[in-house]
Amino acid sequence: LQSTGASERQFIGVDVGGTKIAACLVDAQGRILSSIRQLTDETNPEATLDSIANATQGLLKVSKLDAHSIKAIGFGIPGLVDAAQGIGIASVNLNWKNVAVRAGLEARLGVRCVIDNDVRTGALGEARFGAARGLKHLNYLNIGTGISVVILMDGKFFMGVNGLAGEIGHAILEPGGALCKCGGHGCFEAVASGPAIAARAIEKIKSGKASMLKAYSLDGSWRLTAENVFEAALSGDAVAKETLSEIGVLMARAIQTIALAYDPNVIVIGGGVVQGSKPLFMKIQEELQRLADESWVFRKVFTKDLVKLSALGTNAGVLGAAALAADAQ
Amino acid sequence: LQSTGASERQFIGVDVGGTKIAACLVDAQGRILSSIRQLTDETNPEATLDSIANATQGLLKVSKLDAHSIKAIGFGIPGLVDAAQGIGIASVNLNWKNVAVRAGLEARLGVRCVIDNDVRTGALGEARFGAARGLKHLNYLNIGTGISVVILMDGKFFMGVNGLAGEIGHAILEPGGALCKCGGHGCFEAVASGPAIAARAIEKIKSGKASMLKAYSLDGSWRLTAENVFEAALSGDAVAKETLSEIGVLMARAIQTIALAYDPNVIVIGGGVVQGSKPLFMKIQEELQRLADESWVFRKVFTKDLVKLSALGTNAGVLGAAALAADAQ
Repeated sequence: LQSTGASERQFIGVDVGGTKIAACLVDAQGRILSSIRQLTDETNPEATLDSIANATQGLLKVSKLDAHSIKAIGFGIPGLVDAAQGIGIASVNLNWKNVAVRAGLEARLGVRCVIDNDVRTGALGEARFGAARGLKHLNYLNIGTGISVVILMDGKFFMGVNGLAGEIGHAILEPGGALCKCGGHGCFEAVASGPAIAARAIEKIKSGKASMLKAYSLDGSWRLTAENVFEAALSGDAVAKETLSEIGVLMARAIQTIALAYDPNVIVIGGGVVQGSKPLFMKIQEELQRLADESWVFRKVFTKDLVKLSALGTNAGVLGAAALAADAQ
Repeated sequence: LQSTGASERQFIGVDVGGTKIAACLVDAQGRILSSIRQLTDETNPEATLDSIANATQGLLKVSKLDAHSIKAIGFGIPGLVDAAQGIGIASVNLNWKNVAVRAGLEARLGVRCVIDNDVRTGALGEARFGAARGLKHLNYLNIGTGISVVILMDGKFFMGVNGLAGEIGHAILEPGGALCKCGGHGCFEAVASGPAIAARAIEKIKSGKASMLKAYSLDGSWRLTAENVFEAALSGDAVAKETLSEIGVLMARAIQTIALAYDPNVIVIGGGVVQGSKPLFMKIQEELQRLADESWVFRKVFTKDLVKLSALGTNAGVLGAAALAADAQ
């Protein structure tokens, strides 16, 4: 690591989340050379841009780098992003609309900035350094608070006409099922996202089933997360195990649809939910295998290696942002 | 029309079906200048290639064209096709496996031949001359005996790693539903293809519901088609109307998934089933509008013009085959 400036084989990526900002200096192999983490100020768009710039400058300082020695910095931004125009179109977490993110950061940092949506940078990270390294055609399925798929072929995003290709978090997985934030019913996101998993377990308990998860209820208000459900399942709780099993079947069904829609080399599951539970991942794989055993068409698409967990975990986004910077040089 | 040879703005397309072969001479605007239709000989692969070559030569004769004046002929072939290698990999209808179709036809005709799968040529026809003319990003949803989607962007097919992208006829639309030819249960194709529509009406009648469709049963054996169900629905038959309505809801759900997966300019519905019933198409549109009214995410993808019926009908394949020939010149 040079102390006078980033070499041409060192890149800076910044992953902007609703609560935290992570900034890293990364080498060409995707190794993190230095990193810092800071809270996001989401008071208003200007304050948010200030906190992003601040975190980036903090990384430069920690890395003993001078802004003038850097050709470009990559940023993963939550919500709808127009990468070409450098605009943050909308983000619920950052509470902003049509913010000139790229121009705002370039003005603050004096360095060329490249932005994209944070799930897309996660996909890019896995493609370049992670579970899809060396593979041509990747689907990155992000399952967290929201659910969406990024389609990446030969290093290029398949975006669709409105940039919404892969929004199958809002395809109907359970007809007549739970109300979704989008207004629909039974959407993939409404039945299998993190909050939906907790809600499913709560429904079971409300219907009278005994469960240790009742401890998460106080005066009729619940503080239950998907993680709590997975922990209870490991302890043998029947409601938690049943929930995990049902969610595994639903996720496998959605993944089968994704596999048949895009026929990729690999589907990488990112986001916190499935990474937080090995039993859930095993249930998904078991159910996918059952579907493949049944259907000869699905067997042509499915292999044991088709579905993988993210290899980079929470670093996928920041490594992908660094890849954005590398591509821009 | 010149009598001495095809001009550079006239192209020959041949659509090979399981029962019939259609061959046409087409101009650059997609107008059919001359055409012939002949039965397919599916006794064995050689006989099938003979009958395809024979139909093509028949068209040349009718069009007063000499084979030597033609640069290339395009062919749409049923089943799995390796277009680059010119191989018919497998076709249930033609009962062949790994047939060197291109080489066989070139030997018989003495003209350069270009082949592709017939649903893909259908998509190409709609893109070049039909419902998707001038649009960048087309999904062609073929609903007939089988169901599949062709994804065409900027004139290029999105094929996937194994050439199976778009095989969502085998995604599960009705969990635990009817057994599919693929071995799966509740696949889109198993619940909403032509034969599945007839089977659904028969189930209802068997469960005791009164229907004029009973006339299609003789000694416990049924000769009912989707067309018969649609006709009976027009006559007010309750079982037929209920079947049509349920199928419309299922198809809308599948189309919503397709729209969210690929975010295209247009989804063109080809194949005989939906084209055979205006009320079914209206029910699909009505249900899609209901889903869009519910979900703001789907509203971003859906417009009144998103889903269209094929503009070319049964000529989509042959016109697309002519477009293949045009592209090869």
